Amino acid sequence: MSQAVNIDLILSQVRAALAAGEWDRAVALIESLRPPDQADLFGELPPEEQDVLLPRLDVEDSADILEELEDSEAAELAARLDVETLAHILDKMEPDEAADLLGDIPPAQALQALSAMEEADEVEPLLAHPDETAGGLMTPPPVTLRQDMTVEEAIAHLRALAPDSETVYYLFVVDEESRLVGVVSLRQLIVAPPTVRICEIMATEVIYIHASADQEEAARLMSRYGLLALPVVDDKDRILGIITHDDLVGVLEDEATEDIYRLGASEPLDEPYLDTPISKMFSKRISWLLLLFVAGTLTGSVMRLFEHELTEAIALTFFIPLLIGTGGNAGSQVASAIIRALALGELTFRYLPLVIWREIRTAFLLGLAMGMFGTLRAITWDSPISLATTVGISMSAIVLWAAIIGASLPLIAHRLRIDPAVISSPAMTTLVDATGLVIYFLIARAIMGL
Amino acid sequence: MSQAVNIDLILSQVRAALAAGEWDRAVALIESLRPPDQADLFGELPPEEQDVLLPRLDVEDSADILEELEDSEAAELAARLDVETLAHILDKMEPDEAADLLGDIPPAQALQALSAMEEADEVEPLLAHPDETAGGLMTPPPVTLRQDMTVEEAIAHLRALAPDSETVYYLFVVDEESRLVGVVSLRQLIVAPPTVRICEIMATEVIYIHASADQEEAARLMSRYGLLALPVVDDKDRILGIITHDDLVGVLEDEATEDIYRLGASEPLDEPYLDTPISKMFSKRISWLLLLFVAGTLTGSVMRLFEHELTEAIALTFFIPLLIGTGGNAGSQVASAIIRALALGELTFRYLPLVIWREIRTAFLLGLAMGMFGTLRAITWDSPISLATTVGISMSAIVLWAAIIGASLPLIAHRLRIDPAVISSPAMTTLVDATGLVIYFLIARAIMGL
Repeated sequence: MSQAVNIDLILSQVRAALAAGEWDRAVALIESLRPPDQADLFGELPPEEQDVLLPRLDVEDSADILEELEDSEAAELAARLDVETLAHILDKMEPDEAADLLGDIPPAQALQALSAMEEADEVEPLLAHPDETAGGLMTPPPVTLRQDMTVEEAIAHLRALAPDSETVYYLFVVDEESRLVGVVSLRQLIVAPPTVRICEIMATEVIYIHASADQEEAARLMSRYGLLALPVVDDKDRILGIITHDDLVGVLEDEATEDIYRLGASEPLDEPYLDTPISKMFSKRISWLLLLFVAGTLTGSVMRLFEHELTEAIALTFFIPLLIGTGGNAGSQVASAIIRALALGELTFRYLPLVIWREIRTAFLLGLAMGMFGTLRAITWDSPISLATTVGISMSAIVLWAAIIGASLPLIAHRLRIDPAVISSPAMTTLVDATGLVIYFLIARAIMGL
Repeated sequence: MSQAVNIDLILSQVRAALAAGEWDRAVALIESLRPPDQADLFGELPPEEQDVLLPRLDVEDSADILEELEDSEAAELAARLDVETLAHILDKMEPDEAADLLGDIPPAQALQALSAMEEADEVEPLLAHPDETAGGLMTPPPVTLRQDMTVEEAIAHLRALAPDSETVYYLFVVDEESRLVGVVSLRQLIVAPPTVRICEIMATEVIYIHASADQEEAARLMSRYGLLALPVVDDKDRILGIITHDDLVGVLEDEATEDIYRLGASEPLDEPYLDTPISKMFSKRISWLLLLFVAGTLTGSVMRLFEHELTEAIALTFFIPLLIGTGGNAGSQVASAIIRALALGELTFRYLPLVIWREIRTAFLLGLAMGMFGTLRAITWDSPISLATTVGISMSAIVLWAAIIGASLPLIAHRLRIDPAVISSPAMTTLVDATGLVIYFLIARAIMGL
């Protein structure tokens, strides 16, 4: 029995062992950990110590560490290894992880390592598929069955291959041309009478995906149908590989990260937060800030247009941040709800009229409430009744307008195949700010007779 | 071979069949679908048709549909069934799903249904655990093994029980008092020689979780260690149940949804977007809008304090939305990065000084760039050089200040065990708005001599 370990404690023990030159003790400490913990600890060590330790570890552990390290850290470490050592470790990695790593190191070194590998034929076909596709996630199926095998033969076949990966819970059945024709689960194989043929117990309605499909679609299928593995096929329905449940979790987390960053008006980082250099943080953010700055100057232009009204009634300015702030918040509420519903597959473009109708009704109620509070606030600030009325009506109108913008933009973006999160809250806020001010000043002109 | 189906097409066929009174054809169409598709289609039908169809379906299909429907839809449907039918369906559901459903219907009806169930003893113990805990996610382990069994005996035991769930890929090993002592995978069982004892092949370092732990912690362990199932134990290490991989996906999606909603300044909906009544949408949003409104009135108070400066130089107002907008955006960028890093377990409170130092350096560069653009914009709007300088310096200072706030608040919230996403971008924006204006007016006073 064991619970998650205290990495910091073991890290300090490893550091002490390294400082004392006791390599074997350091190696033993690392090998006592589970792969994700090994990688966490390894990532905390300086490159010199990583380079000395890695060749002393069991090659299976080295392979686990390279699999579990962040892509960029693994690539840096791999790039410092000699070709023989690297090829040896790559042979022990899951083929999909090995292919990812080869794609991240300099091409010349990748080619050398590939030609020194024993398992190159498993990894090489995977290199052709772009990272963001289903093909880019897949790994070769560890075992496939034929439909005329008996259950007994299938079990013997499995025992003979003795696959060391846990990805054998779905056994895919293929015909002579490697075309996918069915699937049996390992559970079914155990429970079925030994002499029954595979074709009698297999399910023929297999959910599959094409190698060129988006990885998000693969994740959606696996999560919808609760699949542990999803077969990937080529244009002729031949099985190329399988996507396993741990890839699914990775894709779901990456997609959520991307949405959350974009809602916060920046591009997602490619590495964990603490590993990202300052220059990278700057470049991921500056373009968004500038874009929003240019859009934001619109608000200044609107105010210059209404300079006369502002000079006549300086008190109008006191409510500007409150009005555009509330409009922005109301719009963000709608946009984030729609963005998440799109990501979860609950909505598509054809729901646009329905969504807008829902949001108009909600915003009507919200606008009524907020307009009342706006009027009250204006009165307590000793504003004349005409200004208080202007603030109240503007507040209601802006909340309604923001809701319509916040509902439409993400759905239109989705339709145009742009990530709806790119129409992030801040971008939408900036748009609502400028148009909201126009609404405010026009209402002020009408009511206050400016 | 099959791909995801076109629900809309089949739905129209089912509707046609129902309109023609051809119940059997409607039933056959529904039974040809996979459970998540059955539930989607079923959810589109009016209650009267659901009530007529459900008892005609195979009870296994009815159970699948109740499992796959959204919680609220399932509860409404179940509440309309008579006790006998409901108990019969509950018996065929996964115990964890049955327990969830019983928790969602009126207590009196739940008690009646429970006493009419055959499998009540499997479901009843699950009802004691709160929804958000590990115990609330678990289902009883379909099979447990003893350490002195041979592999052959274990396989025979498995065959005799013939569990129909796919959750048998990890077989947990217990002692006489049901205490968890090890785990074997189904793969190991197949590959091992039949006469070997379980205790010789089982792994004894089992990752487990206590029933009272948070469900998010369970999800984190499963995703970190790539587990298909996580055993849940009581205070005496006795196994109570297992959490399976499909629960993991659900928890990860719920947590991301919660963060995205809160970043958009509203509380997450409990149901899918399109199923949520307008009154619910209103109530999930109004409290946030009001809270932010109250905070936002701070900006108005700040402006009233500096009314003299504003009257002297009305052009100062033109830059207010731009300055506070940029400050808010810069702060959101930082806050969303920190919130996501916290959710992924990359950061904790002890990194606060390191995070602030990173963000100060990044914000220094961003502030420099944005200050330059701010100055340029002021000059092109024919502002006097003193105003242009004020705008430039204020812009840099506000970006820096926003970054410090955006980095600190989520980490402090995390430390205080408040969801960091509650310190959402809009909440932070409102804070940055008011303080940013003070910075602006003070700099204006100093440089422009107002």
